[in-house]
Amino acid sequence: MNLYEELTPMFKPKKVAVIGASRKKGKIGNSIYITLKDSLKKGEVHPVNPKARKINGDKAYNSIKEVPGQVDLAVVVVPAKFVPKVIEECGEKGVKGAVVVTSGFSEVGNKELEEELAQKAKEGGVRIIGPNCLGILSNPSGLNTMFLPREKLGIPKEGKVGIVSQSGAVGSVIVDWAAAENYGISEFISYGNGVDLDERELITFLVQDPNTDAVCLYLEGTSNGRELIESLREVTPKKPVIVLKAGKTKQGSQAVASHTGSLAGSAEVYDAVFKQTGALQARTLLDLLDYAEIFEKQPLPKGKKVAIITNGGGFGVLSTDEVIRQGLEMTEFKQETKKKLEKILPSYGTVNNPLDLLGDAGPKRFSKALEIIKNVDEVDIVLCIALFQTEPMNEKVVESVFKFDKESIKPITICTAGGEPVKKMKKKFEDGGIPVFNTPQRAVDALRAMIEYSDYREKIK
Amino acid sequence: MNLYEELTPMFKPKKVAVIGASRKKGKIGNSIYITLKDSLKKGEVHPVNPKARKINGDKAYNSIKEVPGQVDLAVVVVPAKFVPKVIEECGEKGVKGAVVVTSGFSEVGNKELEEELAQKAKEGGVRIIGPNCLGILSNPSGLNTMFLPREKLGIPKEGKVGIVSQSGAVGSVIVDWAAAENYGISEFISYGNGVDLDERELITFLVQDPNTDAVCLYLEGTSNGRELIESLREVTPKKPVIVLKAGKTKQGSQAVASHTGSLAGSAEVYDAVFKQTGALQARTLLDLLDYAEIFEKQPLPKGKKVAIITNGGGFGVLSTDEVIRQGLEMTEFKQETKKKLEKILPSYGTVNNPLDLLGDAGPKRFSKALEIIKNVDEVDIVLCIALFQTEPMNEKVVESVFKFDKESIKPITICTAGGEPVKKMKKKFEDGGIPVFNTPQRAVDALRAMIEYSDYREKIK
Repeated sequence: MNLYEELTPMFKPKKVAVIGASRKKGKIGNSIYITLKDSLKKGEVHPVNPKARKINGDKAYNSIKEVPGQVDLAVVVVPAKFVPKVIEECGEKGVKGAVVVTSGFSEVGNKELEEELAQKAKEGGVRIIGPNCLGILSNPSGLNTMFLPREKLGIPKEGKVGIVSQSGAVGSVIVDWAAAENYGISEFISYGNGVDLDERELITFLVQDPNTDAVCLYLEGTSNGRELIESLREVTPKKPVIVLKAGKTKQGSQAVASHTGSLAGSAEVYDAVFKQTGALQARTLLDLLDYAEIFEKQPLPKGKKVAIITNGGGFGVLSTDEVIRQGLEMTEFKQETKKKLEKILPSYGTVNNPLDLLGDAGPKRFSKALEIIKNVDEVDIVLCIALFQTEPMNEKVVESVFKFDKESIKPITICTAGGEPVKKMKKKFEDGGIPVFNTPQRAVDALRAMIEYSDYREKIK
Repeated sequence: MNLYEELTPMFKPKKVAVIGASRKKGKIGNSIYITLKDSLKKGEVHPVNPKARKINGDKAYNSIKEVPGQVDLAVVVVPAKFVPKVIEECGEKGVKGAVVVTSGFSEVGNKELEEELAQKAKEGGVRIIGPNCLGILSNPSGLNTMFLPREKLGIPKEGKVGIVSQSGAVGSVIVDWAAAENYGISEFISYGNGVDLDERELITFLVQDPNTDAVCLYLEGTSNGRELIESLREVTPKKPVIVLKAGKTKQGSQAVASHTGSLAGSAEVYDAVFKQTGALQARTLLDLLDYAEIFEKQPLPKGKKVAIITNGGGFGVLSTDEVIRQGLEMTEFKQETKKKLEKILPSYGTVNNPLDLLGDAGPKRFSKALEIIKNVDEVDIVLCIALFQTEPMNEKVVESVFKFDKESIKPITICTAGGEPVKKMKKKFEDGGIPVFNTPQRAVDALRAMIEYSDYREKIK
């Protein structure tokens, strides 16, 4: 049984118990129970609370042991001091895994209690996510253990990006942001103190998950660098893993120590580890999501020769600067390609790379240019800048890009920016599998990450 | 008469003539006329077209000379070959300035016609913006000569940022984007081929403009480097000027040559020029607007010692990393400050910088922390990370920040990210004069720009 099979009951449970479910509105035990009931697509959710008979109209059980049948997942929200006992009972009941939301363990200096919890989990064979965490948001199963107010937290659409976060707050922002910006995710996991399952096993789980194509990790520090290296080395040849490592400066690592109590380690060591193991580093949360999106949506490029197509000359220039700065190459169109491209431009246009389709370009000119570039050898990657502020531009451009995407092995990405009408186009592109960025810098940076990963895969072949 | 006084009739005209106004929907001469009539707050707009009697119900004149009274501004949309004659007539009529929207001059190789236009303008004393441009969007007067479809182009709210763009397409994206993202602007000017007024005089005009606090320039190349240096040297001690220079790589500068025909020049030369003259460089369009916003909204810092306040530990770490990477300093709180801060934290919190107010923090804890930090010597700048996904957080935080902003000379900036509820908070902050960024990287980068400018001002004192 691989890790994916082992942990599947936790992520796609047929039966969930919420231990510490509460009747009182505003209590975490109440909001988790109600959110879970509403969100889980298939499967039963039962409340466990010895002081209640019913919660939200459902029969409450005195203990996990009284819940009838096999329980796959326990979500634990009882006060910290009761958690080891509850996990012991989970073990006796044969519960496969538990998300321990409760805080008050090593993060406040309560290390003994955390060790006791770890011990009980090990003895009982219960896999643990947490304590001190938000737990799981699983799009395929609908499982959602996040206790944040639902009106304050958007839920991202289903996609192929798996996210693992050591920090709950950072995780909640990633989730809310992903929802607002139309990023799609498969699984989100906030593992808190990581007493059992931590970043190492969770990224392995996601790489094994057929619903996940790219993995994001927000990491402050690890308690076992050697094993993290082993995990990364094993998984990165299969799927891209993108890491945002916080605490890379001396002062930042001091802040990590006081935040999670984990050792941040030196930036140099982490840089070396990520480089050797083929993990891609993001500098900001935005990079993290950008890189994941391009891997999710586009094939790896065969090389780094870029063709830029634009209806705004200035954006062509800005994009060219970024291509060069980030170590990609501007391709030189062959004579035969140039001849074909000349025919689609008005007399006052000239064929270059960036290919300026000119300010009066509409969908037809984009479509013809993409048709020509689709099969030429000298282009590995297409960066298409589609500015929708001009009169001739409309959503037919989207169709042309979809056609290119379907018929070509070259990755394509869109750069566009603006107000509401542009946001609608962005959504159309993205829902059809085309990544969209609002600056050339972001677009080219994501392409650079693809090339870095592609080179790594070649190197280790 | 300084340049601001000289050009004021063009930006706040009492009477405008649209030469080449058209009856036909979809024609540029029609959309410009209608947009101008609708947008200009005070003043008359008259159509000039020898082939029409009425346009949009208004009497059309055969020529500019027939328009009664003093005309301050002509907007010219007649075909290129007629433009010199039209400008000659403007001179005879005593028109102060003209926006020449028409294209088909040097940008398509028609240099002679452009020189003829320049000659006529000089002879007649008519100041020209253009040709081949979008012209002016002036928030104080409402003047809007942009011919892009109005449903495709958002109009930014009134603010204190002036924008000059050599590229129309880049300019239109900046405008639409600024509108969508709640940036405020005073004047936007797209000057195209810049046959008369170009970047040099236009930035001087904006620096003299009392409605403008910061100036943004999108530049591909200049025809007179020496004069640009003189202009920059003169204006940057008064107001910050932020430049996005496109074509800084060799390949990018080749793209400039084919786009605007101007010489991009070497990156090293431009870098040296901007550094010597105190102009701030932006790398992306986003930087350009970010820097402008922070200058518009916040006072210059007295030093570079930053205090970070956060309700998410992870964001505190990420922000600390950025502060260090970008050359700012994390302040060490004095003992007396620490003692005060200790009192506002729960028992399980610790006082550090970043100051983690903890995940259960609400507006009260933020308010108390800001009150304490407001007057302490060891803090020059406050970066306040307010994550609104948690239950206790609400708009009362905004009030505390407004209070700080009002009572303190220290600049303050917000970092927050997420979905709709967060966007509402962002708007509240911004409309009240507080800059908001969605990543620590953006927030700290904008603060760094402030310090760079502040240092320059000190240096030249």
